[in-house]
Amino acid sequence: MQSQMGHTMETVIFMSYKFAGDKSYLTKVDLRVLMEKRVPRFSEKQEDPLAVDKITKDQDQSRDGKVDSQSFFLQIAGLTIACNDYFVVYMKQKGKK
Amino acid sequence: MQSQMGHTMETVIFMSYKFAGDKSYLTKVDLRVLMEKRVPRFSEKQEDPLAVDKITKDQDQSRDGKVDSQSFFLQIAGLTIACNDYFVVYMKQKGKK
Repeated sequence: MQSQMGHTMETVIFMSYKFAGDKSYLTKVDLRVLMEKRVPRFSEKQEDPLAVDKITKDQDQSRDGKVDSQSFFLQIAGLTIACNDYFVVYMKQKGKK
Repeated sequence: MQSQMGHTMETVIFMSYKFAGDKSYLTKVDLRVLMEKRVPRFSEKQEDPLAVDKITKDQDQSRDGKVDSQSFFLQIAGLTIACNDYFVVYMKQKGKK
């Protein structure tokens, strides 16, 4: 049986392939569609309509409009860190550790 | 309904809390138990018994024996990158793109 963490990593890997299609990278459009479909709350809560563009720019080190899988996985880690920070603040406000 | 990516990020966040216990960080022992329980194949396939120690050392920037959640999430991204690299080689050997 696959471990929970194995399944988690596999989910992110296959998601990058699904939205990249035959390419070995994600474009800004691919990333926007992925964020809207798979992380809808991130897009909904965004006051800044350019949030996805900024994320893409951060991840597009070579400035060629292409985000490779490595950058994408690090981006998901960045989103996870942001969610965790939000979660910590939320729990403190509720008076929980 | 929670998105697939939301569930994936939540899984990693709650896993770090589960293995950190009341602490806000993971120790080397916590990390070893987590890897053995949640990423068993990683530990099984390891020729290098010090693999987890090396990963912990990498993530323990301040050298205080503590791995905070941010470092842990980046470590999972690192493992995902390694799994993806392994997957790409495996698929090429099988003659698939």
